[in-house]
Amino acid sequence: MNSDYQRLLDLLAEVSDLNAASAVLNWDELTYMPEGGARARGEQQATLSRLAHEAFTSDQMGALLSSLEAQGVGAGDEPADQVVHETRIQYDRNRLVPSDWVSRHTAAASQSYQSWAKARDQKEFSIFSPDLKTQLALAKELGSYVPTAADPYQGLLFFHEPDFTVEELDRLFSDLAGFLSPLLAEISAGSDRVDRSWTSQDWPEADQWRAFRLGTEAIGFDYDHGRLDPTIHPFETSFDRDDVRITTRIIPDDLFSGFFGSLHEAGHGLYERGLPEAFRRTPMAQAPSSGMHESQSRLWENLVGRSPAFWQFFFPRLVALFPSQLKGRSAEDVYRTVNWSGPSFNRTEADEVSYNLHVILRFRLERRLFSGELAVDDLPQAWRQESRALFGVEPKDDLTGVLQDVHWSFGGFAAFPSYTLGNVIAAQLMAKARQDLPTLDQSFSAGDFAPLLQWLRSNVHQHGARYTTKQLVQRASGQPFGIGAYRTYIEDKYRTLYGLR
Amino acid sequence: MNSDYQRLLDLLAEVSDLNAASAVLNWDELTYMPEGGARARGEQQATLSRLAHEAFTSDQMGALLSSLEAQGVGAGDEPADQVVHETRIQYDRNRLVPSDWVSRHTAAASQSYQSWAKARDQKEFSIFSPDLKTQLALAKELGSYVPTAADPYQGLLFFHEPDFTVEELDRLFSDLAGFLSPLLAEISAGSDRVDRSWTSQDWPEADQWRAFRLGTEAIGFDYDHGRLDPTIHPFETSFDRDDVRITTRIIPDDLFSGFFGSLHEAGHGLYERGLPEAFRRTPMAQAPSSGMHESQSRLWENLVGRSPAFWQFFFPRLVALFPSQLKGRSAEDVYRTVNWSGPSFNRTEADEVSYNLHVILRFRLERRLFSGELAVDDLPQAWRQESRALFGVEPKDDLTGVLQDVHWSFGGFAAFPSYTLGNVIAAQLMAKARQDLPTLDQSFSAGDFAPLLQWLRSNVHQHGARYTTKQLVQRASGQPFGIGAYRTYIEDKYRTLYGLR
Repeated sequence: MNSDYQRLLDLLAEVSDLNAASAVLNWDELTYMPEGGARARGEQQATLSRLAHEAFTSDQMGALLSSLEAQGVGAGDEPADQVVHETRIQYDRNRLVPSDWVSRHTAAASQSYQSWAKARDQKEFSIFSPDLKTQLALAKELGSYVPTAADPYQGLLFFHEPDFTVEELDRLFSDLAGFLSPLLAEISAGSDRVDRSWTSQDWPEADQWRAFRLGTEAIGFDYDHGRLDPTIHPFETSFDRDDVRITTRIIPDDLFSGFFGSLHEAGHGLYERGLPEAFRRTPMAQAPSSGMHESQSRLWENLVGRSPAFWQFFFPRLVALFPSQLKGRSAEDVYRTVNWSGPSFNRTEADEVSYNLHVILRFRLERRLFSGELAVDDLPQAWRQESRALFGVEPKDDLTGVLQDVHWSFGGFAAFPSYTLGNVIAAQLMAKARQDLPTLDQSFSAGDFAPLLQWLRSNVHQHGARYTTKQLVQRASGQPFGIGAYRTYIEDKYRTLYGLR
Repeated sequence: MNSDYQRLLDLLAEVSDLNAASAVLNWDELTYMPEGGARARGEQQATLSRLAHEAFTSDQMGALLSSLEAQGVGAGDEPADQVVHETRIQYDRNRLVPSDWVSRHTAAASQSYQSWAKARDQKEFSIFSPDLKTQLALAKELGSYVPTAADPYQGLLFFHEPDFTVEELDRLFSDLAGFLSPLLAEISAGSDRVDRSWTSQDWPEADQWRAFRLGTEAIGFDYDHGRLDPTIHPFETSFDRDDVRITTRIIPDDLFSGFFGSLHEAGHGLYERGLPEAFRRTPMAQAPSSGMHESQSRLWENLVGRSPAFWQFFFPRLVALFPSQLKGRSAEDVYRTVNWSGPSFNRTEADEVSYNLHVILRFRLERRLFSGELAVDDLPQAWRQESRALFGVEPKDDLTGVLQDVHWSFGGFAAFPSYTLGNVIAAQLMAKARQDLPTLDQSFSAGDFAPLLQWLRSNVHQHGARYTTKQLVQRASGQPFGIGAYRTYIEDKYRTLYGLR
């Protein structure tokens, strides 16, 4: 093997191992770490991040890439070409960020997370606002380091969704709002409302746990190479394609929150487990973007987990675990209940019709914050106004409003659009999978999710970072990225469910 | 602050963080990691170890030390002097080991661990012997890198117990065997045998867990800064003095194995939690040797946990958890049972009289292996011969004999003597603590272990690596290191227990 290429692989493996170690420490922090360990953990994480960043953006890395490129590696289609090509992209992107920005950001993030948590405790936005101003300034600065971007928000988006421009998102959101808002209004005004009050009952924790395990195992989450653990905020992480961890929360009187949370995270996990074995410990063993990753979690959570066929299969299994809680209920009842739709305040618990409106709200506010049109101190009021405009209602306090998401506390602006991209891509992929596999619903009803997983493995997962998000969507679905499939899916499903038109 | 000193502290913090991350990954591997994660974890650990070793033995580290020493730092008694002095010692020791030895050892250790495990499964030493030969050769090579050592075994001992020579250990073991072997024979021949067969009954796991938690909390293990988790082989690890983890095993029909295992590991944990706060992330925040560390685990396990006063306190609490299992038993019964003594094959489960004989057996065999007098292939037979000589009995197979310990599978020769040093030091410290705190037994009976812990904090833990093992023993006990206190403790306890002389 080319010795420069071997050296590149060694250096990439080092970066990958450092990032994996950091992910293990983060998983531990959010699952089992004793409270008193926080200070040391922060120090350890700062060191690992710094070393990974230094190694990945090192002059040595740049020299190896240049030397290989001079030898023609990176232009063809061999594995080495793919690794060099993708490493170059990520190297150039990471080199845009000055080390001292990373240090300042790391130092500020810990404090602003704490003030966000404190603000939530006391339902008082003003506790958080000074740190939010710092985070906003840091995010604007980061965005300004992208020379090809027209403005800092576009620059920031480049780190999350390099394949999309702000203008595209503007159109996308405008198109989405164009049919989602009226649909939500129709559903809300309609008479065919779903009663979900019966779900508020006692669901014993141990049995909830069995249900989560059963559901995630059914769709193919591999417990020989993964785990499910309890946390407050559900997440997925992986330390390799062979060690994929998901977490979920248990709410004693709400089975379905944890259940769909675990399906969602398992969807992310299935993606990670399907990344190309041959590219382990290289930048190729990654999804091309957050939105692409989210497409897999939303697909399994919603397009599978909230489908009638899934509940034909799963309802009897749930009854076996909860005979008294589900007495007198049917698969159809559960299907309708888990697809309840209406105005809401909470993004993560929102139904499929209103979810993207929550993202639109954040996108609009972020853009106004970045343009300077909106001041941080006026954010709570702007949130309430947008909420009224989009949902017709206002949250009762900042905790259920502007303070609900953790993202801004670490400067995660321009991150929310990926959730909507995930929803849209999920529908586009699923439409094609249904074309290719016409008996998909029958297999779901029989508890067989392998055909779909296999389809996703072949068409999405195995490619890793080989294609950009749009290229991958085009290849997998045979169509350019667009909202057509998503709109059809939502309109069909919800108009039928709520007996509209 | 001296800018060289600040740079030294930064570099030491980086090494400390890498080692802590490695410890987290190891803890996860031995507790919760899915089986399939092993390959990636091995790669991640190799990278972290390499980076830590490279940073600690870097030319930059050497230059900073030399510069500071040239400025006179390291000779006095200020914190900076202590850090520079101890770092110099550890730096010089680590620089003795060539990087390529580390790589070869890491590569070989994984394979030889697997062949050891396979040999155990099949109770067949010959499966392990080729890898054991490799490990022996690597260990001899490592020992030969110590220029001050007379031979490779002495060189190897230098890495574990820099304060002791092989000749000293020879005398120590000879003196110990001189009274332990006859005592064990007297106990075995005596008529006042303890019946421990009643302990083989069903001890439900959840209640065992409660007992372990109760016992470790009682002696002061801090669950706001620590955890107790299940594993196959109990161990203690810490990622900082603020995050100290212990593990133990649950054997359904043997409460006391897991109970004393948890007290033992908690003893290690109390030491870690007591290391000097001011020296966090420096080589000063360590015990001076493995033997010193072991003194704390053995002290809490045996000199506290196997004392009559402990059982006066703890017996009623155990009865509350296990009323049927302990029906008709008394605190005295339990005390006698947990101090059962007799010939045995298993080191870790051995009583206080026979334990050191197990260490002596290994020490003797290791020395013969290193001198070339004994060939690896003849080891099982030599083990049986030594066993007969020391205990009067032979293990029935290699699993209960030569294959019982993991140490040799990773080349951990010259490591066993530290266990005996721990036993001896524990008794010497406890004798002084009893002098200084004459009402210690009353406080134990009342469940108050704080006076002893406070004494250990002040006299041992808080000093970190400031003194060598012998210096620390001398300071804490007021006497030079010796076996007098240990002999008195063992003879008094066991002659009384077994009605001898």
